[in-house]
Amino acid sequence: MLTNPRADRVRSVAALSRRSARERAGLFVAEGPQSVREAVRFRPEAIRDLYVTAEAGERHTEIVDAATAAGVHVHECTPEVLAAMSDTDAPQGLLAVCRVLTSTLADVLARRPRLLVVLAHVRDPGNAGTVLRGADAAGADAVIVSEASVDVFSPKVVRSTAGSLFHVPVVTGLPVPQILAELAGAGITRLAADGAGTRLLPEVDLTRPHAWVMGNEAWGLPQPLREACDEVVRVPIFGHAESLNLAMAATVCLYASALAQHPAG
Amino acid sequence: MLTNPRADRVRSVAALSRRSARERAGLFVAEGPQSVREAVRFRPEAIRDLYVTAEAGERHTEIVDAATAAGVHVHECTPEVLAAMSDTDAPQGLLAVCRVLTSTLADVLARRPRLLVVLAHVRDPGNAGTVLRGADAAGADAVIVSEASVDVFSPKVVRSTAGSLFHVPVVTGLPVPQILAELAGAGITRLAADGAGTRLLPEVDLTRPHAWVMGNEAWGLPQPLREACDEVVRVPIFGHAESLNLAMAATVCLYASALAQHPAG
Repeated sequence: MLTNPRADRVRSVAALSRRSARERAGLFVAEGPQSVREAVRFRPEAIRDLYVTAEAGERHTEIVDAATAAGVHVHECTPEVLAAMSDTDAPQGLLAVCRVLTSTLADVLARRPRLLVVLAHVRDPGNAGTVLRGADAAGADAVIVSEASVDVFSPKVVRSTAGSLFHVPVVTGLPVPQILAELAGAGITRLAADGAGTRLLPEVDLTRPHAWVMGNEAWGLPQPLREACDEVVRVPIFGHAESLNLAMAATVCLYASALAQHPAG
Repeated sequence: MLTNPRADRVRSVAALSRRSARERAGLFVAEGPQSVREAVRFRPEAIRDLYVTAEAGERHTEIVDAATAAGVHVHECTPEVLAAMSDTDAPQGLLAVCRVLTSTLADVLARRPRLLVVLAHVRDPGNAGTVLRGADAAGADAVIVSEASVDVFSPKVVRSTAGSLFHVPVVTGLPVPQILAELAGAGITRLAADGAGTRLLPEVDLTRPHAWVMGNEAWGLPQPLREACDEVVRVPIFGHAESLNLAMAATVCLYASALAQHPAG
């Protein structure tokens, strides 16, 4: 039973709210029942430690039992210890310290993916998390997050993925031109989603293997990157809105792809 | 030139960040170039006063010129006055005090709408704003926000609509059962969007006039309301995600409708 909120172990978990500490340790934190449940179900081998208060342990016995059965180190701690580790104002009594989960692009491509998303210089944690969740729902094979993007293992992104971070392979750290080149080499059509696009979404063949390339929330995709893609696709706007936001545009594109690739629904 | 941040006029604008003050005055605030531009373009008659700093007036001459041409009362003020009126930490030098813009359901139905959205007990301002923006982009004819929902004229909702609040008719304040009954009376199919749905989105006929009925972000649509709708429709989930969030689900449904109703894209 961990009772000292000032212990070194507690401080080192709290430090993982900073990107530099995450990168040094190769660890990140998933909090709350939904994220922890999905971590235990889908990636138990990635969980280094699971911290649980007595109250949360009673409320979520199925999560703790599944973690124990999967060989996860489960530690009981006081609410004060959990609060000291937590990034949120209202910690929910369950916190998993996980090894950073990334796949290589080579691994992703070796599995012959049909639907991918590339986030090029996406900076907002909520957008990145929402796109990851949408990619999961649409059955995407992986999400590729370019260098100079938000850290997908930051507490805000992890929270906003609602567990999808543990479902979908994530590739990080590569420059966009290299990503686009490797996708082309694997025969994957690169579709830039951009308001400047000349092709409209309903006109595009989405049955072939393809990747949606989404640009930064403020400035979109720079022209050289658009030109490096096979097609630049615009989500049609039927009303007076200037545009959709990044997460909505990505969701519309991903679902158009999913429905085209799974015609039976 | 307004220079006193403690003037009564300034305080009464600042007070509009509270729902009670908005309801008493029948006024709300739209801030920043994007919202103010769309207010001036689409609903200049609803703008009671436009406040502009000298710097913003120079940077956005086209907005100020259009406002003046439309007969809007434009007031120059100091940055201190604008900051005292503003709800944001980084005011952008343009602030419009607008008359609350609502339509009646009767007016909306008289225009023979083909695509509507009903927000039933939606509480989160970001979700409501994002759905409004998505409804605009998808060419929806109106957004109907039930009683006991977030106030769509709150600063956060106004901001997250990115101007769409001035494009799309909004109906507020009615109980959900009454909304559903009036839609049925007008021959509009009521489609509840819910994870408990038995029909899958791609199977539903979206060419007929219909309304998407979206429930609360936490508890969805209560069963009696689902049963009061004509069909309960589920967005298919192809991966391991439990669900889409409200704004994403609404966007996917609205775009499916828009693409079905505008087959040429």
